[in-house]
Amino acid sequence: MSPEREGRYRLGLLGLGVMGSALARNLIRREIPTALYSVSQKEREAHSLLEGPCVVCGTIGEFVGALERPRKIFLMILAGEPVDEMIQTLLPLLDPGDVLMDGGNSHYRDTERRCRLCREKGIGYLGIGVSGGEKGALTGPSLMAGGDRCAWEQAGPLLTQIAAFHRGKPCCGYVAEGGSGHYVKMAHNGIEYAILELIAETVCYLRGEAGLSPDQTGAVLERWNRGVLGSYLMEISARVIRKRDGDQTPLVDRILDVAGQKGTGRWSEEEAAARGVPTPSIYGALMARNLSGQNMLREEGAAAFPCTAQKGPLLTEEELEQALSLAVFLAYSQGFELIARAGKEEGWRINLRGLAGIWGDGCIIRGRILDRISESGFTGEKPLLFEPAFSDLRSGEAALRRLTSAAALAGDCFPAFGGALFYYDGYRTGRMPVFFIQALRDCFGAHTYRRTDREGSFHTEW
Amino acid sequence: MSPEREGRYRLGLLGLGVMGSALARNLIRREIPTALYSVSQKEREAHSLLEGPCVVCGTIGEFVGALERPRKIFLMILAGEPVDEMIQTLLPLLDPGDVLMDGGNSHYRDTERRCRLCREKGIGYLGIGVSGGEKGALTGPSLMAGGDRCAWEQAGPLLTQIAAFHRGKPCCGYVAEGGSGHYVKMAHNGIEYAILELIAETVCYLRGEAGLSPDQTGAVLERWNRGVLGSYLMEISARVIRKRDGDQTPLVDRILDVAGQKGTGRWSEEEAAARGVPTPSIYGALMARNLSGQNMLREEGAAAFPCTAQKGPLLTEEELEQALSLAVFLAYSQGFELIARAGKEEGWRINLRGLAGIWGDGCIIRGRILDRISESGFTGEKPLLFEPAFSDLRSGEAALRRLTSAAALAGDCFPAFGGALFYYDGYRTGRMPVFFIQALRDCFGAHTYRRTDREGSFHTEW
Repeated sequence: MSPEREGRYRLGLLGLGVMGSALARNLIRREIPTALYSVSQKEREAHSLLEGPCVVCGTIGEFVGALERPRKIFLMILAGEPVDEMIQTLLPLLDPGDVLMDGGNSHYRDTERRCRLCREKGIGYLGIGVSGGEKGALTGPSLMAGGDRCAWEQAGPLLTQIAAFHRGKPCCGYVAEGGSGHYVKMAHNGIEYAILELIAETVCYLRGEAGLSPDQTGAVLERWNRGVLGSYLMEISARVIRKRDGDQTPLVDRILDVAGQKGTGRWSEEEAAARGVPTPSIYGALMARNLSGQNMLREEGAAAFPCTAQKGPLLTEEELEQALSLAVFLAYSQGFELIARAGKEEGWRINLRGLAGIWGDGCIIRGRILDRISESGFTGEKPLLFEPAFSDLRSGEAALRRLTSAAALAGDCFPAFGGALFYYDGYRTGRMPVFFIQALRDCFGAHTYRRTDREGSFHTEW
Repeated sequence: MSPEREGRYRLGLLGLGVMGSALARNLIRREIPTALYSVSQKEREAHSLLEGPCVVCGTIGEFVGALERPRKIFLMILAGEPVDEMIQTLLPLLDPGDVLMDGGNSHYRDTERRCRLCREKGIGYLGIGVSGGEKGALTGPSLMAGGDRCAWEQAGPLLTQIAAFHRGKPCCGYVAEGGSGHYVKMAHNGIEYAILELIAETVCYLRGEAGLSPDQTGAVLERWNRGVLGSYLMEISARVIRKRDGDQTPLVDRILDVAGQKGTGRWSEEEAAARGVPTPSIYGALMARNLSGQNMLREEGAAAFPCTAQKGPLLTEEELEQALSLAVFLAYSQGFELIARAGKEEGWRINLRGLAGIWGDGCIIRGRILDRISESGFTGEKPLLFEPAFSDLRSGEAALRRLTSAAALAGDCFPAFGGALFYYDGYRTGRMPVFFIQALRDCFGAHTYRRTDREGSFHTEW
């Protein structure tokens, strides 16, 4: 395209659904001249009266032409094939040096492939994890960019303007090459799955075992929110538990216990399995969602299977807070361990403390623990669990033990808490039962074993 | 090739490593005229003096020429690229109607791809799960064939002759189309991972918590082996635990507690994650192996992390037997659930009771529970856990609860037992904590929720 056609808009936002629309309003409020486009005429019309430094383009050619050069285009469309199709549509309209960004929840391997494709055409590509939901997108999301570093130099300053700020720093940053931005977003969502399940299990304990009313439960969560557990999810939990339906019944009691699991949660678990990273709390959260969909079967099982439930001694409010604090900390430890392993295997040099800073505000899992992680000496060489700064949280192990044990006896299926204890105890087990597995494998398959007292591989005629 | 060059050997076995060599001896002992070949001269030479109706061929052309037509070639080589390379080498030498079989632990998707490739050339392809280790291959393995049904008609009778026999039926059968043979072998190995870990956890409990000597432990396992738990793995466990090192120290006490995890175990978990099937015991077993490799870190954790271990009341031998019986049963339930889901999604019509029969002897996980499964009314429509015939096993839930609870308090990381209880309790939880997750998701992301009292999707301003 000729330089004459260069436009004056600094950023192009493509896709005006819930998230795209919120991002558009955010950009405009920050006075960033933005060209908007959507393949949906309805979405374009819905934004035609938007006030501020923006234009809603009627065609994709008009949209591309409206942008200053090098162009910066942010895709906020459905992950998967639509992204590939849009890239194919855009590529002939772009010039070398232009920057394409994908803010959807794309699989990091798709992002790697698109990075390579665009690089061949001289187009800079960034896969950007966007967290914070609609509200975050509107007021300041957390943004994790991965891909071409040069593209980041071009587009980073603009993104930084719309991101959340936390303790004087933008919650927006360059993670590493390739699909690393979408990878850390995936892991973020894995952590989110685990924390959501942990809070839900806690609420069930408070109401079911401890017998608290919704208001009493809300008060407990509010108190906790002022301490170590202080976080966005704790804050909204306290509000949500108190909400009443029209007839004053607690609204949550009317909500069906069936949850889906979207791509990123499942991908986290597939990635953890493929890389051999222990993430039992994330696994437990996914398993819970998978089982939740089997509600007909569950009702049948509830009626038919024996259960010798025993109520043990109740945990105090303080003990429960300790158990939850440790379990939430271990959810972060698992997520960071996955990222550290992937970083090592993929050759991404990820600053994990920096990442904790990016998650410091704007995103769903923001909370005080992340501040402590950014301030700690954590490098990812060892799991976060081993970080000296968190001995106060580790001391919650007695409470976590008691809660897990009580849940097993009471018939409460709390796999996120249980998974947290497996992770904790696994990393403090000097000698694991696995020695016996090695003996059996040598017995039935001559797989050989190693010894504690000598080097080498050994085989025994058992 | 011209009909003149048709040979007189009924089967061609390609690959003479540990498993191939054992299969060769098995074939020859059953008087099946077999042509042998290996790309390794050393392996060929090692078999040159083999007596019986066989020939060791010096070249692949000679090997193919030695076979009666339609040719039946069984590959027993390393899974992965070597199989693709060998197929490329063989295809030009084969004629339409010939049959290629892969007996390695190939990924089922590779098998699906190779099936399609061979079908285009008119070659029948079978992916065959072979279980039983070296000893099974020698005396009668369990064989699970998937792929072209016509190829099975050709090769099945030969395979049936070398397979194990159990209660008058061969432990060998056609599973379904495509990669189904390798799929069920993968799930078999997933179940094996879980049972191995369950036995190892049990042995640790008997020795560590109950304080039994190796001989006492062996006696307990022997007693159990005569009951519901009767199985090959229980039998060898009783032997292995008693084995002494040169200085009379129990040999297992000298075995390093580090286990790898090969393809099939990891694939089971990836598959379960991708299809959303709850397999927490298999997950626990894999996690244990993953953690086992972190032995330096574990020692550091053992020294540094707080652990308020409490010894609770001991389980009786009978209670422990009940807990293990239920947990082993649930491992089968998880594995079969994975197979049933994959069968549904891939369009394989798998006879699950028939599969239990194929696993009845020859394979590593053979045991009495499999006989009961073949005799039950199990169809896979519901998880095996729901099968009425197993109420005796379900009544072990109290013992499983007590064991899991005690392990949590004692600081024993028993994720396979813990996973079994999650699976059991998950399927008998009428109302899961997930309702609260749905409320939170609607609060932070307007994801909407469903209600217990009305149809539709709802959103609330929380």
